[in-house]
Formats: sequence, C-alpha cells, structure tokens
Amino acid sequence: MGIAECRADFPVLARKIDGQSITYLDSAATSLKPHSVIDAISEYYSQNGVNIHRGKYYLSEEASDAYERVRYSIAQYLGAYGNEIVFTKGTTEALNLVAQGLNLKSEDVVVGFLDSHHAQLLPWRRVSDVKLVSLNSDGGINLEHYFELLKLKPKAVVLTHCSNVTGNIAPIKQMAIAAKEACDAIVIVDAAQSIPHPHLSIDVSKIPVDFLAFSGHKMLGPTGVGCLYGKSEMLDQLRPLMLGGGMVDWVDIEGSQERKIPHKFEAGTPPIAATLGLGAALSYLNQISEQDSREHTKELAAAIIRGAMDRDYLQILGPKTTENRCAIGSLRIKGCDDLSDIARALSDSYGIMCRTGHMCAQPVVDNQMGGEILRISSYIYNTKEEIERFYLSLDELVSFLGI
Amino acid sequence: MGIAECRADFPVLARKIDGQSITYLDSAATSLKPHSVIDAISEYYSQNGVNIHRGKYYLSEEASDAYERVRYSIAQYLGAYGNEIVFTKGTTEALNLVAQGLNLKSEDVVVGFLDSHHAQLLPWRRVSDVKLVSLNSDGGINLEHYFELLKLKPKAVVLTHCSNVTGNIAPIKQMAIAAKEACDAIVIVDAAQSIPHPHLSIDVSKIPVDFLAFSGHKMLGPTGVGCLYGKSEMLDQLRPLMLGGGMVDWVDIEGSQERKIPHKFEAGTPPIAATLGLGAALSYLNQISEQDSREHTKELAAAIIRGAMDRDYLQILGPKTTENRCAIGSLRIKGCDDLSDIARALSDSYGIMCRTGHMCAQPVVDNQMGGEILRISSYIYNTKEEIERFYLSLDELVSFLGI
Repeated sequence: MGIAECRADFPVLARKIDGQSITYLDSAATSLKPHSVIDAISEYYSQNGVNIHRGKYYLSEEASDAYERVRYSIAQYLGAYGNEIVFTKGTTEALNLVAQGLNLKSEDVVVGFLDSHHAQLLPWRRVSDVKLVSLNSDGGINLEHYFELLKLKPKAVVLTHCSNVTGNIAPIKQMAIAAKEACDAIVIVDAAQSIPHPHLSIDVSKIPVDFLAFSGHKMLGPTGVGCLYGKSEMLDQLRPLMLGGGMVDWVDIEGSQERKIPHKFEAGTPPIAATLGLGAALSYLNQISEQDSREHTKELAAAIIRGAMDRDYLQILGPKTTENRCAIGSLRIKGCDDLSDIARALSDSYGIMCRTGHMCAQPVVDNQMGGEILRISSYIYNTKEEIERFYLSLDELVSFLGI
Repeated sequence: MGIAECRADFPVLARKIDGQSITYLDSAATSLKPHSVIDAISEYYSQNGVNIHRGKYYLSEEASDAYERVRYSIAQYLGAYGNEIVFTKGTTEALNLVAQGLNLKSEDVVVGFLDSHHAQLLPWRRVSDVKLVSLNSDGGINLEHYFELLKLKPKAVVLTHCSNVTGNIAPIKQMAIAAKEACDAIVIVDAAQSIPHPHLSIDVSKIPVDFLAFSGHKMLGPTGVGCLYGKSEMLDQLRPLMLGGGMVDWVDIEGSQERKIPHKFEAGTPPIAATLGLGAALSYLNQISEQDSREHTKELAAAIIRGAMDRDYLQILGPKTTENRCAIGSLRIKGCDDLSDIARALSDSYGIMCRTGHMCAQPVVDNQMGGEILRISSYIYNTKEEIERFYLSLDELVSFLGI
C-alpha cells in the first residue's frame, strides 16, 4: 500500500463539520483510526466478547488466542520475545510501572530530558533525584551535557526517542551504549512518538535498551492499550504495579505466588478489544514501507519548517532541518499570548484541528518558548497541502486580528 | 424494555459454532455487549477518534463533552457528584489505587472477606495486615466474626457486595455503619458483581461508603474501563497511583502541582472509546426496571440452586435460597477432580460456555470446596431454560464419563 492512498481508509476524514472538511493536525496527541481497526473491535464484540485466559471453552480460547497473537506480533515488530511484552493502559501506565517497580531510592540519580513528556518525568521524580539534559541551540539533545551527567553514575537514564514538542529524534542507540559503558545504568525509552512511524522502528535486540514504552492510540490503534517492552531478566525483577486476578499462580490464606512474566503485570481483565484493535493497527502499519514513511515524514516536516521560517511573526521550536526530525511544529506567534482563540478560530472557520498549551512537556515549553505554544503534528494521512493550508489560514487570522 | 426481549440485542447470541447455538454462562467473568454499546465505540472512532481535554478545537471538545457526560451519568447512577467518579482500567486498578494511595502501614489491620476476589485481597495484603471474615455454614458472611474483627479497630474494611463465587450478597449497609461506629474505619466496596444488576444499585449518599469500585465490562460495557467512586474528601487525600500528562496544573524544573479530583487520578490518555461504550451500557441498563431485574435474577438463581440440589453428584457453594443472592452457581462434581475436560466437553458438544478453576477467589474455593470448581453465572440475556439445559447436558456427560 502506498502512503498516498491511505487517506480513504480513515472514515473521520470524510466527515464534514458545518459543511467544512477536516484538516487534522493533532496526531502527536492521538492518531485517527482506519476502518480495519474499528472493524477488529466491532468484530470481537459482535462475534465473541468474552474474557481471556480463564475459560476452557471455545469463545474464551478464541479470544485468548487472538489476544496472545497480538503480543507476538508486537514482539516481532520490536525484535523481542513474546514474554517481554506487557500490555498496559498506555505509555503512562508502562512508565509508572517501571519507575515504581525498580526499587529506586530518593537519592538515586536518574537522568532525563528537559523535553520529556510529563509521563517520562513525573513518575521518576517521585522515586529518585532526576537531572535533566538540556537542549542544544538547535533544539536537539545536548549530548555533551548528557555525557557530563553520566559521570554522576545514574541508576537509570530515561530517554525520549522523539520529542512530542520539538519533533527531535534523539540518538538513543548512542545514548544507551554510553549509559551502559559509563555506569551500567538501566535504560528506559519513551517511544510513544516514534513507534508509530515504520522508518523509526526500534530493534531491541540491537540496542542496549532495558525497557521501552508506547501507546496503541498514537499508532492507529485504540485508546486504552499500550505496551511495555522489558528485557526478560529485567521484567523478572520488576515489581508489579497492580495485584489481582490473573497474575498469580496460587493464593491461600497466608500468601500467594506471582505468575511468570508477562502475566504477573497484567492483573485483572485487560483491555481485550483495544488489544485486538492494536493488532489490526500494527498489521496496517506493516503495509507501509520504511522508505515511504521516511519520505512522507520528510516532506511534511519540510513544509512545517519552511512555513514557519517564511513568516516573521512565527517562531518554531526544535531543529530547522528535516534530518532526525518528525513532522511536528511547535509555534509561537510573536506578540500573541492567548493562542486558545487562534486554535478555536482555526477550527471554527477553517476546519483545522491543532493544539495549544504546554503539550504535557511544560519545562521545555516554558524554558524555550516562554509560554504556551500552538502545535501542529501530522501523520501518514496528512499531505503537505494541508500544512500549507494551515499556514495560509494562520496568515489570514493573524492579519484579521491585527497581531 | 422488558428483560425477556433483550436477547436479540446481543449479536454474539446469534452466532453458531459448528452449527450449534451458544449458551453463555460466564457473565460473572464478563458480560456480552448489546448493539448499542458496540455502535457507540464504532461511532466514536468513525466520526471523531481524537483526544480529550487537551484541544481547543471542535473534535476534541466534542469528545471531551461526551466523555464527561458519561462521568455524570455514572455519578447520577450512584447518587454521587461528578468529581467523585474516577475512570480506571477496571475494578483492579481502582482497588490498587485505593490500597496504595491511603498510606497504610504494614501493621495496620484491614478486614476483608474470605470470599473476596483476589483484586480485593492481594492489594490490601501488600500494604497492611489483612484479617478475613469467615463464612457461615450457608455460605454467607459470618457477621458475628465480622463484628469480632471490628474490635481490632481496623483502619479499613474491604467489603464485597456480591461474591463472584458464592453469589452471596453481603449486607454492606449494615457492615459499613458498624465499621464507622466501631472505629471510623475507611469503607471500600468491591461492587464489580452487583453494579451490573439494576435491583442491586447502590446509593452512596445513603450508605457510609468511602470508596466503591466496579468494571465496565461486567455491566454490558467494554473491556478496559472501570470506575472508582470516592467521597470527595477521601479522594482529595488519596495519592495518585500514576503520574503523567493531564493530571497536573503545572510542571516546572523543580516541581509540579496536581490537578483537582478526579483529574489527578487520570494520568495519560484515558480509554476514551471504552468510556463512551460504558455510557451506552449504562443507558441500556437504565431501561431495565429494578423489579424486572430482581425477578429475573431470582428465577435464574432458583433454577441454578434447584438443578444442583436435585442431583446427588453435585455440591453447590453458597446460600441455598434465592434471597440476597445472584444467579451464580459454583459446583463441585463428587469424585471428579479434573473439571477442565467437563468444561471443554460442555463447550464442544453442547455449545455451553462456563468456567472452571478458582475464579480468582482461591482461598474460599479451596477452603469450602477443596479444589477447583465449575461455575455457571448468568445475566439479563439468559433464560431458565438455558440453566436447565446446562444441567441436562451435565447429566449426560457425567453418565457417559462414568463419574
């Protein structure tokens, strides 16, 4: 499947609001879903709908098989073993599970990024002494500062593969190797923004990554499901965040015995339907070649950067080249502090859906941009014409508002 | 809507496996879903599919409004305020959140039930000294033992409204009042098995319950979403289980400020689609009168008890009357220790789907039945003829196998 033909697979894009087509530019928050994902969920509920792992009957075994097949397809996508994939509610649960499960002490140093998402910052701050790597003048990770911080012998480094604000792609392989060499730090990667892109796929068998987390809903899949990859020897030692049914071999009046990985982390009925939807999402993504994904991202990123650079009234955060960058643009309009009205007008008058605020990465947004930003973020179903349309609409609005 | 007409709303019941109709008797594990719930999920993904609470644009506001409307409909169902409803992944997350969030000490006494689900036992054991109330000879809660244990001045009592094994309905109002009078213990109710039944609805404004947890998927809703009700002053003090985006007012280089309840407990992108499906499930349930629900449950429970009592080869756990009881039957076949083969044969030869094992309540199952059980559990779409068919099929099988 070519990336250019995929738009028709996304039913939302056929919707009109007040007669107007939708230009969706908030995929870093969540992606739209193709028919095949929606159908996988409906199919499960219409033809099965029962619980997994618990019944010795046809429908339960059918559901369990389908659920476990998704686990193995995710494992294959990452170069991992099946038992190294834990299903969670999303990236946030996955990162909290690791942060709380490692038995860190409050004085243990953990090195993170200034432009981490709050989900890769706050859980670590709760349990350790977090030091943040600053950014270069171009918005990328300051590697010298990172190497400097490694001298503190951190227990863990918590990396972000692709920033949801700057769009910058960090050299996680190099950084993971350096962390292992410096102090054998545990390496935890937030891959929520990179995993959706086939050209940014990660082979965990070739990088010294201990844990890696991502969400289904940013990679064409449903809300309510995500994955934690963990090296089996690391998962073995990790303390479960939640206890309950399905994660124990036995329970008696005195005690209980946890099941093996990955099941000891999946207490309670999991998000079965969402997991099956995630399987369909991965199948869809597997149809897109890495080259198509790379070229399409580059084309959109170029349009985002060019559009901002061409306008005096705009400031854009992050790298100004399309190398090692996703098609995300975080913008500040000079002289305009209330971006909410702009976002609302873009939506109401132009059908353009984009975000304002701190993007759940407030330290970097405040530090680099001095306040809220307007973010556009794009994905496989977007075109460069949509990016250009965004900028032309913004020109009209800014001119009309006299900013 | 009468309860007798509802079967047609459940598409799975029209499915045939190897030409055979399905008799689904595992609703205590999860309920089947009506068309309206499946459609609500598809509708969201086909016509919207975006993230909530974050965008000042049309689609995001539409999704946010729909999500928050579900919160208020749940609140209304329980007699609570909107900000007292926290969406979780399910009952298990809800109970773990409370257990870990109360700052209990390992020597603090917590009183639970012998027939608690593991999700209402293991999280408490991890943080406190749990004492279990024993059962009466009829399988109900031994209230005298409960009152005795209250003399230990427990910090919390963790009640189960309806046992997923015995089907017994505990007098939670009386027990909650006693716990408050004895030592002002925090009262936490697992309502996963009772909330699905309109005649067992709980008005939290009339019972001194501090927290109450249940899952969407047992009440006709999707997997992957559940609710925690908490009194606002209790939620205010409760520590969030997970940190991340959406649960903070601000974050800077040094610290952060949590948002107010309920948002401080909902870090990350929530299970949006499943929550909207839960809203549709509640609308469906609201069409069923309490009287219909009560009578239907009573009819099915009577068929379950009678079927077991009529057979010398069967032993049934729990109360033998239909008063204060759900239509769940946990059975032991005398002289048969491997029930898996029975369950498989019931499925393969008769299309009857029921459970074997410890039902995530191993202490009571081992204690009362000496090993694994065969459980049938029914819901609004079941008929007493299905229960009778189950017993006749079991007769055939047992006779054929020479048990």
